[in-house]
Amino acid sequence: MTDLDSLRVLLVAARNPLNIGAAARAMSNFGVRRLRVVNPYEVAFQEARSAVGAKGLLAKAEQYQNVAEAVADCSLVVGTTAAARRELQHRLLPLDEGAKAIKRHLKVGPVALLFGSERFGLSNEEMSHCHWMMRIPTREEHGSMNLGQAVAVCLYELVRGRKIEAGKLAKAALTRKEQTAANSGEIERLTKLLFAVLSTSEFIQPRAVAAEEKLRRLVRRMKLNSNDAEVLLGMLRQIGWKLRATEKEGG
Amino acid sequence: MTDLDSLRVLLVAARNPLNIGAAARAMSNFGVRRLRVVNPYEVAFQEARSAVGAKGLLAKAEQYQNVAEAVADCSLVVGTTAAARRELQHRLLPLDEGAKAIKRHLKVGPVALLFGSERFGLSNEEMSHCHWMMRIPTREEHGSMNLGQAVAVCLYELVRGRKIEAGKLAKAALTRKEQTAANSGEIERLTKLLFAVLSTSEFIQPRAVAAEEKLRRLVRRMKLNSNDAEVLLGMLRQIGWKLRATEKEGG
Repeated sequence: MTDLDSLRVLLVAARNPLNIGAAARAMSNFGVRRLRVVNPYEVAFQEARSAVGAKGLLAKAEQYQNVAEAVADCSLVVGTTAAARRELQHRLLPLDEGAKAIKRHLKVGPVALLFGSERFGLSNEEMSHCHWMMRIPTREEHGSMNLGQAVAVCLYELVRGRKIEAGKLAKAALTRKEQTAANSGEIERLTKLLFAVLSTSEFIQPRAVAAEEKLRRLVRRMKLNSNDAEVLLGMLRQIGWKLRATEKEGG
Repeated sequence: MTDLDSLRVLLVAARNPLNIGAAARAMSNFGVRRLRVVNPYEVAFQEARSAVGAKGLLAKAEQYQNVAEAVADCSLVVGTTAAARRELQHRLLPLDEGAKAIKRHLKVGPVALLFGSERFGLSNEEMSHCHWMMRIPTREEHGSMNLGQAVAVCLYELVRGRKIEAGKLAKAALTRKEQTAANSGEIERLTKLLFAVLSTSEFIQPRAVAAEEKLRRLVRRMKLNSNDAEVLLGMLRQIGWKLRATEKEGG
């Protein structure tokens, strides 16, 4: 069991079986075992599974319908992008800085590393599940990397120069839940509940997708620990209940 | 003209057109322009040339019959290998150390970086033209990388740490308020308003001092930026208004 066992590599909407296979091979090269494919082009996934090389890893790959489910158990979610200038809603870190942050987090909780589809990268909705984005330092004139190569480069940076960090934080005074960052499942429940309360309050329109993505990013930026997330969920439940109760009385 | 223009990437006896294309794409991504193919499987090379992506680079690729000719103008020749334990006749450097030496040399003269065939790597004869060998830190149990991925990782290590604009640009895209941490005044207004809403919702007792302090610490832990604090204040105002409005209707 190493820190890398807490890393999940997510291929979102991958369409080319060769790329899925190449990603799996790079994972095997660098000792990363957990592959999750999200909403893949079904034929591509089956084809990749039946191809040679890194068989065990692909055979154990988990399949998900959407990003929310695939990152639910992760407390840090990082997206990759080729965008340098595009107006991102997220903080963008260069790969070496991002990898450092990921390595730190792997010591305390599971991390999801997302790669978008070959043609379009990650959509805004998919990115809204990410805490921040990471960029490989490619040329601006030709930034977009091949998927398998992007995975290889990112994983290389994560295993490069592995050392054991000497200094451990004094965490004894905090409870386990206070030490643990809220995972994506908790963040998502919080987002949904906040969205519902704000809809009832007429702060936002029901089914306003962009608003939900904005909320998700806002909640992620709070960097809540698991305990605080639970407290906030309780608050929102109560507020929601009160809003509905008084509405009924009024109606 | 950068130092990288003194780097030549040599693919020796490559057999798969997709790999030649992938190598060219990675070169383009990382701003390395000189591709040399040595004794390629002819069909593969022609097929790679006609494929999409990195066309200019492949079109300008130089073809050689053997390594000796292909490295003739280079003053440093470095081979890549997956071998960790195999008895090499050469000095073997890990990628990060090797890349440093290559970067130093690029300032004074041309460097050839050799990648062997997909199946056999570099032969002893081919290696004999190298000053030393370099190894990507893959697992011993599965050391052999895909050719295109190996090229991508090596070139990434060579360009890593060069100043890129991405980080700066993304930060510039953020507004001043998004960069600035919420000040204590904002935190306090948020705390008071949240306290009021939670009192109305009967989540807490009015005038519960300990609860207010808990809330204040909770809000502080969110490490909000000024913009997000303002958004949250707006939400709470609206929720508070709605709660009072529905209560009045009910009462």
